[in-house]
Amino acid sequence: MRKKLVSIVMGSDSDLRVMREAAEVLDRFGVEYEMDIVSAHRTPDKLFAFAKGAHERGIQVIIAGAGGAAHLPGMVASISPLPVIGVPIRSSHSLDGWDSVLSILQMPGGVPVATVALDGAKNAGILAAQILSVGDPALRDKIVAFKEDLRQQVLHRAADLQRGEGSP
Amino acid sequence: MRKKLVSIVMGSDSDLRVMREAAEVLDRFGVEYEMDIVSAHRTPDKLFAFAKGAHERGIQVIIAGAGGAAHLPGMVASISPLPVIGVPIRSSHSLDGWDSVLSILQMPGGVPVATVALDGAKNAGILAAQILSVGDPALRDKIVAFKEDLRQQVLHRAADLQRGEGSP
Amino acid sequence: MRKKLVSIVMGSDSDLRVMREAAEVLDRFGVEYEMDIVSAHRTPDKLFAFAKGAHERGIQVIIAGAGGAAHLPGMVASISPLPVIGVPIRSSHSLDGWDSVLSILQMPGGVPVATVALDGAKNAGILAAQILSVGDPALRDKIVAFKEDLRQQVLHRAADLQRGEGSP
Amino acid sequence: MRKKLVSIVMGSDSDLRVMREAAEVLDRFGVEYEMDIVSAHRTPDKLFAFAKGAHERGIQVIIAGAGGAAHLPGMVASISPLPVIGVPIRSSHSLDGWDSVLSILQMPGGVPVATVALDGAKNAGILAAQILSVGDPALRDKIVAFKEDLRQQVLHRAADLQRGEGSP
Amino acid sequence: MRKKLVSIVMGSDSDLRVMREAAEVLDRFGVEYEMDIVSAHRTPDKLFAFAKGAHERGIQVIIAGAGGAAHLPGMVASISPLPVIGVPIRSSHSLDGWDSVLSILQMPGGVPVATVALDGAKNAGILAAQILSVGDPALRDKIVAFKEDLRQQVLHRAADLQRGEGSP
Amino acid sequence: MRKKLVSIVMGSDSDLRVMREAAEVLDRFGVEYEMDIVSAHRTPDKLFAFAKGAHERGIQVIIAGAGGAAHLPGMVASISPLPVIGVPIRSSHSLDGWDSVLSILQMPGGVPVATVALDGAKNAGILAAQILSVGDPALRDKIVAFKEDLRQQVLHRAADLQRGEGSP
Amino acid sequence: MRKKLVSIVMGSDSDLRVMREAAEVLDRFGVEYEMDIVSAHRTPDKLFAFAKGAHERGIQVIIAGAGGAAHLPGMVASISPLPVIGVPIRSSHSLDGWDSVLSILQMPGGVPVATVALDGAKNAGILAAQILSVGDPALRDKIVAFKEDLRQQVLHRAADLQRGEGSP
Amino acid sequence: MRKKLVSIVMGSDSDLRVMREAAEVLDRFGVEYEMDIVSAHRTPDKLFAFAKGAHERGIQVIIAGAGGAAHLPGMVASISPLPVIGVPIRSSHSLDGWDSVLSILQMPGGVPVATVALDGAKNAGILAAQILSVGDPALRDKIVAFKEDLRQQVLHRAADLQRGEGSP
Repeated sequence: MRKKLVSIVMGSDSDLRVMREAAEVLDRFGVEYEMDIVSAHRTPDKLFAFAKGAHERGIQVIIAGAGGAAHLPGMVASISPLPVIGVPIRSSHSLDGWDSVLSILQMPGGVPVATVALDGAKNAGILAAQILSVGDPALRDKIVAFKEDLRQQVLHRAADLQRGEGSP
Repeated sequence: MRKKLVSIVMGSDSDLRVMREAAEVLDRFGVEYEMDIVSAHRTPDKLFAFAKGAHERGIQVIIAGAGGAAHLPGMVASISPLPVIGVPIRSSHSLDGWDSVLSILQMPGGVPVATVALDGAKNAGILAAQILSVGDPALRDKIVAFKEDLRQQVLHRAADLQRGEGSP
Repeated sequence: MRKKLVSIVMGSDSDLRVMREAAEVLDRFGVEYEMDIVSAHRTPDKLFAFAKGAHERGIQVIIAGAGGAAHLPGMVASISPLPVIGVPIRSSHSLDGWDSVLSILQMPGGVPVATVALDGAKNAGILAAQILSVGDPALRDKIVAFKEDLRQQVLHRAADLQRGEGSP
Repeated sequence: MRKKLVSIVMGSDSDLRVMREAAEVLDRFGVEYEMDIVSAHRTPDKLFAFAKGAHERGIQVIIAGAGGAAHLPGMVASISPLPVIGVPIRSSHSLDGWDSVLSILQMPGGVPVATVALDGAKNAGILAAQILSVGDPALRDKIVAFKEDLRQQVLHRAADLQRGEGSP
Repeated sequence: MRKKLVSIVMGSDSDLRVMREAAEVLDRFGVEYEMDIVSAHRTPDKLFAFAKGAHERGIQVIIAGAGGAAHLPGMVASISPLPVIGVPIRSSHSLDGWDSVLSILQMPGGVPVATVALDGAKNAGILAAQILSVGDPALRDKIVAFKEDLRQQVLHRAADLQRGEGSP
Repeated sequence: MRKKLVSIVMGSDSDLRVMREAAEVLDRFGVEYEMDIVSAHRTPDKLFAFAKGAHERGIQVIIAGAGGAAHLPGMVASISPLPVIGVPIRSSHSLDGWDSVLSILQMPGGVPVATVALDGAKNAGILAAQILSVGDPALRDKIVAFKEDLRQQVLHRAADLQRGEGSP
Repeated sequence: MRKKLVSIVMGSDSDLRVMREAAEVLDRFGVEYEMDIVSAHRTPDKLFAFAKGAHERGIQVIIAGAGGAAHLPGMVASISPLPVIGVPIRSSHSLDGWDSVLSILQMPGGVPVATVALDGAKNAGILAAQILSVGDPALRDKIVAFKEDLRQQVLHRAADLQRGEGSP
Repeated sequence: MRKKLVSIVMGSDSDLRVMREAAEVLDRFGVEYEMDIVSAHRTPDKLFAFAKGAHERGIQVIIAGAGGAAHLPGMVASISPLPVIGVPIRSSHSLDGWDSVLSILQMPGGVPVATVALDGAKNAGILAAQILSVGDPALRDKIVAFKEDLRQQVLHRAADLQRGEGSP
């Protein structure tokens, strides 16, 4: 079994619906990951233990998703020296997602969280792979190929549109 | 020396400009308090130690102020069983204060923060006194007197306006 | 019959859907409460009579919920010396809840309302219990236990996730 | 002395800076008015007495200005049968004026407040005159003349611009 | 047939769903009204003719509803000397109603629009009746009675809640 | 004297500070223009006459700037068949510019306004020139040259930065 | 076959639902157009090639629609000398459309995008026709007729309302 | 001379005021970087050349800052396989920074930008160092030391506050 390099954590099991997209994209890139529920507000001790120990276990990148007054990504970033990617989630108790975005993005100087779009767990996974590709040429190549795939998908759809252009 | 019942904490010394209004109002009510800087993002261990121990030291109410992605009030509330009053601060790195407000107010079910207005440290102090007045009739009387003072001030200003009404 | 310590009021019977969560959590903590509809805009006399008399009847904490231009919590706080917890409600006539939040939260200096999250009635109930626990060690213990329950629930769900991690 | 038909009230003497524009425009229309400070949050009894008695004293229109969680206009409207004009004020403790606007505008069905623009006290005075002009042809004529004046001012400025158009 | 005193206009027939509440409340007060579709953007000539002639036909108050970049209320107010009540409508092409609210509310000095809440046509009708009650004691009495009805409805619902309080 | 092809109108002479940038850029492109103050709210007749006649006088593009509840661009577009460019202005009575932007941008289906950025009068001038360049190769060439100038300016500044890069 | 004068591009095939309204209105005006999918983020090379070559192929106006962080319209405008009309789209990954609007509208000085309302593709088509009508009297006449049609539709609906006014 | 690993680019020289904080923090970590002005809207060719070639020159992380409709970070991310950190800048032509934030953050699925807080260039530099520390234990140690420094600074200020606590 290969070493887990990415840790995907989320504040609630209801966030799994969004966060599994990060896992799926890491599967595609062949990057090993772990996934766990760590609530900043309900399991603060677990948060501390997790954030303190992650880099010692060999984790290289942390992806943290949360909604509402979303403190998990920022608190992990305050404790761990690892790069932390934050995923704001438009959960049922959020104010249309604005609270999730602002409470993850607007970190004070000294403690960055690499924030992606609202519900942007897929992009969090890609960003984690991009980070790991620093010094991993094989993974870099996979990212280049992934971008080429994106391009081909759009070109195919554009071609579909052209064929059917008479009846938009 | 009487026992300190309220703990006023803030994320940065730049927050002192706002947070001292909480102290001033507690002075007026004769409520003993302590004041400290506890940064959720830069001193997470101190945050944990503070929040775990406050109620054991006899603190009854915590007032926590922070700006931007303001995690201090919510993290204190996640750890301590005490009532926590949150003061959103419009700090230099906040987005007109909206980030401060939303990241303190929008706590998930289970972990309340009693949020006051942006830069509303004075009201945080009054609220702390109101909370302590549960079971303290003398303090309740002081709150009733404080409200009467507010009333008199407005009435005096209204009287001033009436006297000068001819030339507004 | 034990004495009612908390009064839960709301501006409309349509708010009951949200506000009953405050009652349920107080039931859990064994705190006696009363519940009533008091509309700041349609029954102002009742509002005044209620807010003036509550502390004289032995009520210790007031929870007030309203939506739109939500004046109930603030007006109760202007009249009563008791701590007032405000619950902004995303009612059908609110502007996505922003009006509810701002018209409860942004009280002027001198008259605090302890505001919780949008539709956060459950947290209002917990906060009321926390306030009452000042000087009530048995209730404090229940709050500590409640927080432990929250923790256990998350840990159980995290364990569930681990068991099923192969197919997220 | 002629009868006062309009009552201009405001939550704080700091609102006078804005609210005096309502008085000035009523002076121009020759409409008698009274002006007072009535704080919903600090003088609730005065608010009630004022709002209950205004129409019995012959007042026909109420202009109420307030900032932040601005409850004065709505509470006056809840008590008085008179038309109430609300002026949201961008006061020092408001959140860029959004709280003032939303807490005045978003009244529930049954209790209207005729809201004007942020800091729009001048328009409140004009609107009061328009309301009084229902059944007062002389006042209606003054309003027609006022609108003609507005028109002439713009035409004069446009003529100035044309004369200097060569060097904008 | 009695004279029509209120004119209810709206920018589109799709606004009728909201605007008919203004008509219903005027029916209740026994106030005669006319209703028409006048689009500022699609029938500007009709807008001009309507706004220029309304007061000459005996109309005393205009209620204008529109959504999106809602120019109808403001343009009617720019042309007519009558008091104009604006109803912002959350139409299908509006940006959650914010555009409707701001483009009606934020009129420049000199040209007021009495703005009511988003989709607040009922309140527009009540406000029109309140305006007409200036100098019409019988209508004023109906408004007092209407407010009493509102009060009774809330009291009845509060009584219902009390009876069923055991199982909220 | 060559024919005026662009008409620059604004709601108030205070808008001239912003709108003159449109004139300056048209000067640079050698496009003749007229400039006038036309207030939708204070000179509605002039607005109508202007908008009805512009295309008959040979005007090909209209640039209209206004702030707050900004109705000028949309009303011109409702009357004139010409392309209308709207410039939202952050005037002293606007709500941080949001009202200006939304009341110009959010026009209903059928009546477009080509909206540029807040205070974006310079871009309005460029856009007018781009529109006129349809069928005017010489003007198209000037636009290509203008874009090349923009490019060169950035490249020069980048070169300056490189030279001084040692001490940023 | 006549020459294509308008190019309609969009960032994703999911935008076709909105963007086809631009095509439909151009069909009505008898303006030839092409339609393609060009993603700024997934096919940047195609974006460059498209934007560089459009005016050389005889395209006179470009309509570009995108949602979320919508860079397509602005990037096309940065490369092409043609007038570019931007359509903000409320796509599934947008933040209620605010991101789409702001990232298209707020272009820096020098590079305009003629922005229409959220999901306003129909207006983009009309605006394109208005731009092409500069120097095309026949197309100008069609636009005048289109506006007359809009007017007639409203008048018919107003007449319908009048007939059924008894039971709104 | 050591190899440059980070490229700091910005849309305008006026962004240098903010972006130099990224450079300063990289200086502190001993990370080599280059800095350049690359405008998405005024030098699109340079943008393409830069983004296509960066990883081939050995750059491992790109930091891109821009304001208003800020397309630079997203377009670099669309072209380059490297991790891209976006810095939203509250420039003079931005709408209080909201446009900058949303047009960088809300990237579509497939093309992430690691967004930091408004004007958060310092955090962008720290994040770049954290990314580079994946596989560079010496740099990881510097980050751990940096976090310890942050902690010590707060503890010193807290000690200062304690010493002067008598006169807050």
